[in-house]
Amino acid sequence: MRFPAVLIKVSDCTSRVPVLLSFQAHGFFSRLQAKPQRNGNARSSFGIAFDIDGVILRGQVPVGGSPQALGRLYDDSGATKVPFLFLTNGGGVPESRRAIELSGLLGVNILPSQVVQGHSPFRNLLNRYEYELIVATGKGEPAVVMSEYGFKKVLSLEEYASYFENIDPVSQYKKWTTCDLATKARRHEMFEPDYDIFSEKVRAAFVVSDPVDWGRDIQVLCDILKSGGLPDKHYGDQPALYFAADDLEYQAAFPTKRLGVGAFRIALECIFNRIHNKPLQYTSYGKPNPFVFKNAETILRKIQLNDKNEDAQSHSFETIYMIGDNPPVDIKGAKQAGHPWFSILTRTGVFRGKDNDPDFPADRVVDTVEEAVEYILQREFCL
Amino acid sequence: MRFPAVLIKVSDCTSRVPVLLSFQAHGFFSRLQAKPQRNGNARSSFGIAFDIDGVILRGQVPVGGSPQALGRLYDDSGATKVPFLFLTNGGGVPESRRAIELSGLLGVNILPSQVVQGHSPFRNLLNRYEYELIVATGKGEPAVVMSEYGFKKVLSLEEYASYFENIDPVSQYKKWTTCDLATKARRHEMFEPDYDIFSEKVRAAFVVSDPVDWGRDIQVLCDILKSGGLPDKHYGDQPALYFAADDLEYQAAFPTKRLGVGAFRIALECIFNRIHNKPLQYTSYGKPNPFVFKNAETILRKIQLNDKNEDAQSHSFETIYMIGDNPPVDIKGAKQAGHPWFSILTRTGVFRGKDNDPDFPADRVVDTVEEAVEYILQREFCL
Repeated sequence: MRFPAVLIKVSDCTSRVPVLLSFQAHGFFSRLQAKPQRNGNARSSFGIAFDIDGVILRGQVPVGGSPQALGRLYDDSGATKVPFLFLTNGGGVPESRRAIELSGLLGVNILPSQVVQGHSPFRNLLNRYEYELIVATGKGEPAVVMSEYGFKKVLSLEEYASYFENIDPVSQYKKWTTCDLATKARRHEMFEPDYDIFSEKVRAAFVVSDPVDWGRDIQVLCDILKSGGLPDKHYGDQPALYFAADDLEYQAAFPTKRLGVGAFRIALECIFNRIHNKPLQYTSYGKPNPFVFKNAETILRKIQLNDKNEDAQSHSFETIYMIGDNPPVDIKGAKQAGHPWFSILTRTGVFRGKDNDPDFPADRVVDTVEEAVEYILQREFCL
Repeated sequence: MRFPAVLIKVSDCTSRVPVLLSFQAHGFFSRLQAKPQRNGNARSSFGIAFDIDGVILRGQVPVGGSPQALGRLYDDSGATKVPFLFLTNGGGVPESRRAIELSGLLGVNILPSQVVQGHSPFRNLLNRYEYELIVATGKGEPAVVMSEYGFKKVLSLEEYASYFENIDPVSQYKKWTTCDLATKARRHEMFEPDYDIFSEKVRAAFVVSDPVDWGRDIQVLCDILKSGGLPDKHYGDQPALYFAADDLEYQAAFPTKRLGVGAFRIALECIFNRIHNKPLQYTSYGKPNPFVFKNAETILRKIQLNDKNEDAQSHSFETIYMIGDNPPVDIKGAKQAGHPWFSILTRTGVFRGKDNDPDFPADRVVDTVEEAVEYILQREFCL
């Protein structure tokens, strides 16, 4: 052996793994000295949170060497050596399905617990709305997402609107259908709901992901929110309104930024405040909300503990790396969250600057996520 | 004869008609004294402008006894006795087709010249954009409307967007069939345009009628307007932007008001001003714009003159009645236009008040358009 083998325990959801060997497989450690752990904690002192759109994927295509970058976080047996998760403001499908999609696209085994989407915190509202009528909108299957969180009486805004004839004045000009088979199946089940849709108040509206039919959604949400939960009625306070994220823009497959949930929120708010006598009340989740980073830290601890019945609070990270492409979302969020967050900004998405972002400077700027992971591994394991 | 027959010449596009007889047919004049003309002008001294949505129709259904009301403006030969037109902020189809639709729904013969839609004034911009690339959006056939006005290089926003892959990040969630056969035929013709869509700047964008796909339209309009006419490029001043109307809300088939072009404009403007360093520049037509009322007065004169080569300016109306349902649109517009406009507010649409509108009080408030026409005929022909 060319230098003493130093066994570094990293969270691998299994057992100790000689990092030396696996890193040699990447031709990385062969030229580096191993760096001792910074604290007495036998577990890894760091974790990683990856943004998805503009960092890992653009549309449905991997970018920035993301498969290679993630591959370096697994040992030869396919077990993770470093606790990591995906922290995205996107969504629209259950975390379990998103994990399968990501595994297929990136060639590694992603667990549902490693996928934190914009709407993931909605499950924390179950105690408030579990048996109340709620509506959900956004691309994908917003009602299925909420149902899987445990909400018992949820309709997609599309399903809900279908009960009110002429509620969308331009519907006859739309031959499109945004609902997929699963939603159609749900609608079939809903054909004879066990409650009266016209007398049951909507208690809360959830924007789960990027809306598809903005015109109808803004119209029907205004109807619901103005009326106190029953379109065409005029009484009651505004039902609660929750947004999974508040991104003004994000990087998708098109060369320039696309409008996100935050843009939809601005459109709804500007119109609602013109037609109603009380300003729109709402709550937005998603980055840069500090709650999202605190929540991600807790989840990373659970991943590190491999969901054993150990107290996640008793373990702390020296560093959690947020790798993102969107300064006002990823970098601002990590900065606001403070210790132990360390922000790394890539140039594969929203940010394209030569130097650092002037408004929300990151702790480190790199070209790609592959470069970001190399930097992290060097910083954590080498002098 | 129970009282002397008084021949009152009214503009009927034909010749003198004994109003007495025709009105007797409606059981109206039989109980009234005929009133002499107020001026020496041999022609009718008044005209009528009817709003459509909420006054004549709700959705595609006549309201307020509109067929009966309009029937009273024709003589037994089917010729008009009183110069009238429809002054609507709606649109989306050529005036010629709208006239045929209205004739069928109302049982009277409406001429294209009697249909003034929100986008009708766009034809006045022909000298500026006849040979320039322009885009048009809204329900119906916005590109066909503009083509019929004479614009040579017009694409619907849907056609234009179809050339830019991934420009709409949620398009995969839409089963696209919003374009009708006419548009499909146009798109087929456009398959090999005689210009390069990717280097030809869009010089102006026209919102011809209520947009159908708000999300895509706001995204693509922002792309065009921010870039100076070429999405994904970043140079040049904002191309011109024209709205056919600026109605915040209007009355359609649904019991409560629906969001109109004005709401779309607010959404676009709020978002554009957040993502661009210069505020959105635009021009809105439609009521209550005084230009619309001045234009309607000129058209009414031409109708009165039966398009003869007489000088329309040499004839003036003592009164032009604006019958509308929307105080901030119809009544405010007529008030601003001043003489000879006289505003009549109906209760079959946006306005539902018991008394007059507090913000934009009309000269007269009635329940229906039928009641409005009876009031006008009594006022014009009877003591």
